[in-house]
Amino acid sequence: MNDHSQPFTDQEREGLYRAIFERRDVRSQFLPDPVPPEVLGRLLTAAHHAPSVGFMQPWDFLVIDSVEVRKSVLALFDRENEKAAENYSGDRQDQYRNLKLQGILESPINLCITCDRSRGGPNVLGRNSIVETDLFSTCLAVQNLWLAARAEGIGVGWVSILDQEDLARALGLPDHVYPLAYLCIGYVSEFLDQPELQAKGWRSRLPLAELVHRNGWGKFIDESDELSPWLKPL
Amino acid sequence: MNDHSQPFTDQEREGLYRAIFERRDVRSQFLPDPVPPEVLGRLLTAAHHAPSVGFMQPWDFLVIDSVEVRKSVLALFDRENEKAAENYSGDRQDQYRNLKLQGILESPINLCITCDRSRGGPNVLGRNSIVETDLFSTCLAVQNLWLAARAEGIGVGWVSILDQEDLARALGLPDHVYPLAYLCIGYVSEFLDQPELQAKGWRSRLPLAELVHRNGWGKFIDESDELSPWLKPL
Repeated sequence: MNDHSQPFTDQEREGLYRAIFERRDVRSQFLPDPVPPEVLGRLLTAAHHAPSVGFMQPWDFLVIDSVEVRKSVLALFDRENEKAAENYSGDRQDQYRNLKLQGILESPINLCITCDRSRGGPNVLGRNSIVETDLFSTCLAVQNLWLAARAEGIGVGWVSILDQEDLARALGLPDHVYPLAYLCIGYVSEFLDQPELQAKGWRSRLPLAELVHRNGWGKFIDESDELSPWLKPL
Repeated sequence: MNDHSQPFTDQEREGLYRAIFERRDVRSQFLPDPVPPEVLGRLLTAAHHAPSVGFMQPWDFLVIDSVEVRKSVLALFDRENEKAAENYSGDRQDQYRNLKLQGILESPINLCITCDRSRGGPNVLGRNSIVETDLFSTCLAVQNLWLAARAEGIGVGWVSILDQEDLARALGLPDHVYPLAYLCIGYVSEFLDQPELQAKGWRSRLPLAELVHRNGWGKFIDESDELSPWLKPL
């Protein structure tokens, strides 16, 4: 463990920013190579060190390498994805159907990160005003894992097109446990230069400057604001 | 921008893990030193590069340096915190009241990260099964910013003891915009070795091995599992 009082070196800081900017949601580039247990252990340890409201640590981690279980989850995905496709019509539906949106079988490991809504009892410090803070905390664990994976050269894809009740049943979750994130994890042939949905023309990155307000909604950063030069695209 | 095909150097990877393991929820160690605009710009850029379902990027960032606005938010905190204290009794209530749970005025910048629930229109790719994925995506942006701040030597504290409707009113948010995270941001005198709630005996870190299951809920990792040696505390 490092000495907390030492500032980050340029290389250490660069490593953090590389992980953030080069992280991708991976669907199509998974390799079958196994993820060594020590590497998976590091990813889980990173997730477990996420912040959580009241230090409640509401997460559990279901490591899924069974092909049988993964096939049952893929069947759930296929059903939901067919419903989702019906939301579009014409060219947009064709475009939707041509997108690959999961790597459940191609990746060697699936990981379900759950949120135990009862952990810590009825009065969790900091959770009185906003009961969803347990779900939010679990999301922070997902992002820790996602970034650690990138630094290890491992891709992660979040499969959000799943009915959560069906998924909970497939994994045998108790009623008070919510399957927050279903992730595909594995080494990849490459990390794409830009998000796949952007590269394929589905949607573009928004200009950051249009999303920053000062001291109240709608008071956007204008050219005279000292922050303005620092909100340009990378 | 780096070449995405290059593996991370040991130092770069170590930088990412340092940020994850040395990140703290800061309440008491803020310094009044200003955060330079170029640094704040880097933090916002990091947040903006979080993953989001359907690339919807539902977040906005309200940079709050006005003392007047911060005082109005502090008043909202005080009210909610008084209610929260009533959930405890005896020694536990004394302990609760002695915890410092926000640095709204001591930190030079407050930042509200919001989620625009209407962004991307009615059919966002990947959001058909789970409508909360926009909130989850916004959480990922929070964690990107939190880690980038740590690498910059800047502390972040999430103030979750706020009534979200009151907060939305104080910041002038439209109805479709949810104030997901209210953060205090600033340089710090030190980063604590361990989470404050742990150091003060409020709650301890759970053993990771008790949170990892294989291929279904309740099938815990036992000593014979190859993952077992890699789930030890740091």
